[in-house]
Amino acid sequence: MKVFTLKEIKAVLPGIDLIPLIEEGFAAYSQGRAVVPPVGELILKDPPGDVHIKYGYIEGEDYFVIKIASGFLDNQKLDLPSGNGMMLLFRQETGEPVCLLYDEVYLTDIRTAVAGAIVAKYLAPQNVERIGIVGTGNQARLQLAYLKGVVDCRHVLVWGRSEEKKQLYSREMAQKGFTVEACNEISELAEASNLVITTTSATAPLLTADLITPGTHITAMGSDTVGKRELDGVILGQADLVVADSISQCRERGEIAWALREGDIQEDDLVELGDVLSGSHAGRQSDDQTTVADLTGVAVQDIQIARAVYEALHNKPDERAKNPSPLSS
Amino acid sequence: MKVFTLKEIKAVLPGIDLIPLIEEGFAAYSQGRAVVPPVGELILKDPPGDVHIKYGYIEGEDYFVIKIASGFLDNQKLDLPSGNGMMLLFRQETGEPVCLLYDEVYLTDIRTAVAGAIVAKYLAPQNVERIGIVGTGNQARLQLAYLKGVVDCRHVLVWGRSEEKKQLYSREMAQKGFTVEACNEISELAEASNLVITTTSATAPLLTADLITPGTHITAMGSDTVGKRELDGVILGQADLVVADSISQCRERGEIAWALREGDIQEDDLVELGDVLSGSHAGRQSDDQTTVADLTGVAVQDIQIARAVYEALHNKPDERAKNPSPLSS
Repeated sequence: MKVFTLKEIKAVLPGIDLIPLIEEGFAAYSQGRAVVPPVGELILKDPPGDVHIKYGYIEGEDYFVIKIASGFLDNQKLDLPSGNGMMLLFRQETGEPVCLLYDEVYLTDIRTAVAGAIVAKYLAPQNVERIGIVGTGNQARLQLAYLKGVVDCRHVLVWGRSEEKKQLYSREMAQKGFTVEACNEISELAEASNLVITTTSATAPLLTADLITPGTHITAMGSDTVGKRELDGVILGQADLVVADSISQCRERGEIAWALREGDIQEDDLVELGDVLSGSHAGRQSDDQTTVADLTGVAVQDIQIARAVYEALHNKPDERAKNPSPLSS
Repeated sequence: MKVFTLKEIKAVLPGIDLIPLIEEGFAAYSQGRAVVPPVGELILKDPPGDVHIKYGYIEGEDYFVIKIASGFLDNQKLDLPSGNGMMLLFRQETGEPVCLLYDEVYLTDIRTAVAGAIVAKYLAPQNVERIGIVGTGNQARLQLAYLKGVVDCRHVLVWGRSEEKKQLYSREMAQKGFTVEACNEISELAEASNLVITTTSATAPLLTADLITPGTHITAMGSDTVGKRELDGVILGQADLVVADSISQCRERGEIAWALREGDIQEDDLVELGDVLSGSHAGRQSDDQTTVADLTGVAVQDIQIARAVYEALHNKPDERAKNPSPLSS
């Protein structure tokens, strides 16, 4: 069994075309070709921490994957990153371990950003006038970096609670080729953007239905656990299309769970992302429609990125550096 | 994060006094000081395989442990071991990975045998006349090896379906200082032994109540999943004491689950091993009593052995080789 470090993983990642791989994962999931048991969870109390174990496989492929990811917020006091983790690959045929990708949660960040790009590719209006980024953290950066490959628009509005972080974000993203304006009010962002990505860890709605311009697509990727929430349920209720990365998971967590509980939407209204990708569902019909996608993170994303990274590291060194990285420009 | 191989693990294991450590784990578990979520399970179909993820921690200690163990029976056709696995240690304080013990399921075998020794230490009659070993596989060997430290008796009766395996077992165990007789019928074994260990993967009872001599202690460790079974439920119904390694787990799997379902025992009859070890339950009262212990394997055993092995490998090299190994004599 080989162990690969974050440095080694980062070296091969730019050479991997992740979007089609992760699209394939979502499609397999929605077609019932993926086995993804419920997430294992271990809660630590003092200091508080949580550990999630996501695992599964796509039938007929070579590997199954077990991902261990943790969040320990008090680590900040110790000058340590709060997130940590690894992905382990095993052979489906024999159960033998193949490798450990000690990615320190980096691959989870990347596959989450890639899912955002996939959603924008299929659900954003054809003419994106401005991209609205809600939040100024790591995913606010990564989501925009990966959008570059699927959306032509380079005009960005950003909103966050900290003026300093908004300014830092604007400067950093300007260096990556975007024109960024920092908004004082989230309403300014909502009014002027027709592709909105919410990336915060908010626990109460930041956006309400009256703020949303018809024809907007919203990707809500911040609320991945039961307590988090970024969108008022009426936004989902009024949308022409509400897409879940995993309907079964969104029943329990994220924006969709809130909107279902509060009666703004019914489960029959939901469409699964993989069904849009495979063409089973037509997706957005015109630039006038308002669409919402709720991303909670599904193990098929981990399965696909882990396999691709391992193959790049081990089997197919000639395929490295084939595609430019969205992070390097 | 360090990775230790089976060879490195085997080198330090003889220096670790596992019995008190694993006793401590069972006691912590029964006192509610261990957090052990439900076992994660991934089933593969073609070829058939199953993967179990056991994980948890003891409150206030340094580490939490995630164990991944798999069984792929068709591996035998490929000349590969059917079992595989590893244990991962993480810091409770920060979630940081500490090490990976790539033990290839060896530590699970050892901690299972140690649990058998602990049970015998507390529940076997004072005068063990003969040890009856049902089965001729790996655990039949390991259980006897670890009994050596807690039971004086060196007279062993063995029963199994294969004459050849019984003879091989007898020769091997004779080399370890036991006098071993192979039985043609399991009834001979049951009649002459007052400490019986069942170690098979049988799916129907091998022992019935009429075969058991009063005053016997039986440790049933073969039936760790829902479908397996070694004892008729009446044995448990007639016993003076029925001990579970984990009552919550034995409700679902093992001998106790069968006996509960068939009405031979009630849940109120059950005593948890940790309560016997800590003295909360008095355990066996005399050599006349018949007792049964059902071992299904609990994550606290993994937690304790993983910690001890890691500390021996890393922190406390001076403590190596302090105690002789039951496997080396």
